[in-house]
Amino acid sequence: MPHTQTARLMDGTGLARKILDHSAAMATAITRQTGTPPCLATVLVGDDPASATYVRMKRARCEKAGIASRHLHLPATTTTAELVDAITSLSEDPEVHGILLQHPVGAHIDERAAFEAIAPHKDVDGVTMRSFAAMSFGLPGFVSCTPGGIMRLLDHYDVELAGKRAVVVGRSAILGKPAGMLLLARDATVTYCHSRTRDLESIVREADVLVAAVGRPGFIRGEDIKVGAVVIDAGYSPGNLGDVDFDGAVTRARLITPVPGGVGPMTIAMLLSQTADAAALQSGLAPAELVPPSSPE
Amino acid sequence: MPHTQTARLMDGTGLARKILDHSAAMATAITRQTGTPPCLATVLVGDDPASATYVRMKRARCEKAGIASRHLHLPATTTTAELVDAITSLSEDPEVHGILLQHPVGAHIDERAAFEAIAPHKDVDGVTMRSFAAMSFGLPGFVSCTPGGIMRLLDHYDVELAGKRAVVVGRSAILGKPAGMLLLARDATVTYCHSRTRDLESIVREADVLVAAVGRPGFIRGEDIKVGAVVIDAGYSPGNLGDVDFDGAVTRARLITPVPGGVGPMTIAMLLSQTADAAALQSGLAPAELVPPSSPE
Repeated sequence: MPHTQTARLMDGTGLARKILDHSAAMATAITRQTGTPPCLATVLVGDDPASATYVRMKRARCEKAGIASRHLHLPATTTTAELVDAITSLSEDPEVHGILLQHPVGAHIDERAAFEAIAPHKDVDGVTMRSFAAMSFGLPGFVSCTPGGIMRLLDHYDVELAGKRAVVVGRSAILGKPAGMLLLARDATVTYCHSRTRDLESIVREADVLVAAVGRPGFIRGEDIKVGAVVIDAGYSPGNLGDVDFDGAVTRARLITPVPGGVGPMTIAMLLSQTADAAALQSGLAPAELVPPSSPE
Repeated sequence: MPHTQTARLMDGTGLARKILDHSAAMATAITRQTGTPPCLATVLVGDDPASATYVRMKRARCEKAGIASRHLHLPATTTTAELVDAITSLSEDPEVHGILLQHPVGAHIDERAAFEAIAPHKDVDGVTMRSFAAMSFGLPGFVSCTPGGIMRLLDHYDVELAGKRAVVVGRSAILGKPAGMLLLARDATVTYCHSRTRDLESIVREADVLVAAVGRPGFIRGEDIKVGAVVIDAGYSPGNLGDVDFDGAVTRARLITPVPGGVGPMTIAMLLSQTADAAALQSGLAPAELVPPSSPE
């Protein structure tokens, strides 16, 4: 039975712009009240061109939003101890409000140890164990930026989650795992799928909300999307290819994120939003009171 | 189509005894090498009779295994700050190797704050946010005792998990959530179900491994158990009633935990086992080398 409906696109670019505008307004208010702008420290280890580009994009976005950034570029030969020391210094520096460690770091470095050197109140990228547990337990804290962005998108499009079947394909510590936990905290019935999952297709077919986060282009077939599902494609591959066969999925889904322009822009928006929140909190200001609530989305 | 097979019972009592014996051997070795036995601090707030009984059982088991215990009984009027202070003192006390806060604590207490006052290396009950994240990320650390006991049972009975459909019914911070994460770390495809889940029956029917952890007697119908499934009943209700209709399930499952005598005894065994491990590690001893590996199970 062919389906001729066409899914509504979830406009991550547009929503991200609103969040970025709100973050900029926050930054202005914080700068006015404290005399200094919010400051994000970015840490890059080694010379991977893609990582350097990501950091450059994030810093450019910060500048545009009136958020200062301080960049620490360490050589590829940096040891775990040296990286931990550098991040610990940033954690203790009162002029730094948020810390982003660009990953992956070199294979010789204990990435987890480096992440854990980020003070929880500066973990604006949501990568620490504490932040993960807070997401899992529904406690206050910073969220991982991509899963957090996904939740904002779902909320923006009024997607009901309670009691719905959510399927998360992928189980990384910064994307799949926290995405599932955030969905569970919102009362979805959550299934985690991954490389060892058998008969993935039949599980995907039951998903009211599908989050694809494996980074394998076209990994999810369009024909397996449940009619009326909400499809979040958080895949990222060279050439801006998503995990989901978009052309096939768009005829069956109710809502779908395009790639690019869906989840991608939300990630960086969440980073800036959380940096502004961190600066407010560290300055003793209440984020919700700083900027009129009409501004956000 | 009727099924006449009868599931093999998973003997938690027997396995727990082996683990307790091993813990006792560990305690003896630690006492011999350091001059002091492992020590578990138990903290009880208020006068709930059931909680008092649980703590008494745990301390009696410790004594039997040669593990010292120190008991702190605080009045029901204890504030969060007072409880956090008391636990922080135990965290800093070099004579205490493990800390157990009996929950629930009173509703006026921030239980999470109290849990977080437990130093990670003394979190032998696996309740801190750090322990949860470590379980979720497959990192070293102490596990929550009931989920950890469930994994030991599954391993003891050589239950293959990779690629299997695991369904966890219940999502508490100390049982359902960590159980799912431990199963996911072992490459199961994990679905979390809970009170808001719709059509629970159809999800249960697909479970190769079912973990029931809601505390509602007979909540899972026997007829919904997949033929050949492994059924772990972690429910606990007055009168020793499990979450699963045992009589119905036993004719369909391949392996099933009885209630009592299944998961229950494993919880306390894991607590003692982890207390012995904590004492070894805090004394600079390698747990695996202290007692010959032939002893455990």
